[in-house]
Amino acid sequence: MNVADYIRTIPDFPKPGIQFRDVTTLFGNPLGLQSAANELINLSLNKGITKVAGIDARGFIMGGILAQALGVGFVPIRKKGKLPYHVYREEYALEYGTDSIEIHQDAIEKGEKVLLHDDLLATGGTAVAAARLIEKCGGEVVQISFIVELPSLDGRAKLSSYDVHSLIVFDGE
Amino acid sequence: MNVADYIRTIPDFPKPGIQFRDVTTLFGNPLGLQSAANELINLSLNKGITKVAGIDARGFIMGGILAQALGVGFVPIRKKGKLPYHVYREEYALEYGTDSIEIHQDAIEKGEKVLLHDDLLATGGTAVAAARLIEKCGGEVVQISFIVELPSLDGRAKLSSYDVHSLIVFDGE
Repeated sequence: MNVADYIRTIPDFPKPGIQFRDVTTLFGNPLGLQSAANELINLSLNKGITKVAGIDARGFIMGGILAQALGVGFVPIRKKGKLPYHVYREEYALEYGTDSIEIHQDAIEKGEKVLLHDDLLATGGTAVAAARLIEKCGGEVVQISFIVELPSLDGRAKLSSYDVHSLIVFDGE
Repeated sequence: MNVADYIRTIPDFPKPGIQFRDVTTLFGNPLGLQSAANELINLSLNKGITKVAGIDARGFIMGGILAQALGVGFVPIRKKGKLPYHVYREEYALEYGTDSIEIHQDAIEKGEKVLLHDDLLATGGTAVAAARLIEKCGGEVVQISFIVELPSLDGRAKLSSYDVHSLIVFDGE
């Protein structure tokens, strides 16, 4: 079974015409979780990574696993107002309006090599903002990994200056 | 170094008189993360656990690690409106008003033995609601683990029918 087979597709969610790719069925299956984890870990070995940053909230699930497997610390990048200490903030565009994410200013030291992880690459807006937050701390984004990529939304173009990997690509959507 | 030493205490956050226990400094330190993970994994070995459920959002970080280490699937219990498929919902009390959390109805099969995990045990309201969601699915909550417990808020009393463990207890607050 391929890791893609563990993803559930929900038609017309959150609105008509959208095929929602539900990664919870992959996380919920022991083989799905282990397979995806092993593939992602293998992508990130021997890169000198010193920290994993995960994006709130689904990026925390595999992000923690990756940090533990690589023997490094984990940094949460959170929706605004959730982190209790001094933060940097970046805005990103939503379909209507903007939202913002934050990182603790001392979460990453100057010169650290950071793996940025999220479950899904769609428009790439959140990932770009997250990469900028890591760079504001003085870290270097050496790799960005996703479980699922939706290439029709062209998020990869926004991330063209980074080393981007995804396990599963759902073409034509 | 004890795992407690990796927790940062932020005075007067989110309001005067509150000592906020910030677990991000534990996650961010490789030794802190590994030590806490190893202690939590050891608590949950040989219990016949078939699934780990983590509470949105900080409970996802260690929850994923626990599922991976125990060789079982991970189930996210999320704030309302975040899960794309059929859900059960439970309300819990906030300081002012109520909020609710949800679980996918098919995330846990009848008779499964579930470890429930969150980073912090405060009043216990969210954990009780999460345990009820697991039981609505037909699962058995065989263990509940936390990284930090604030015993002055007496959350453990609400969870007296469960096997509850926490790594770090901050007395007198």
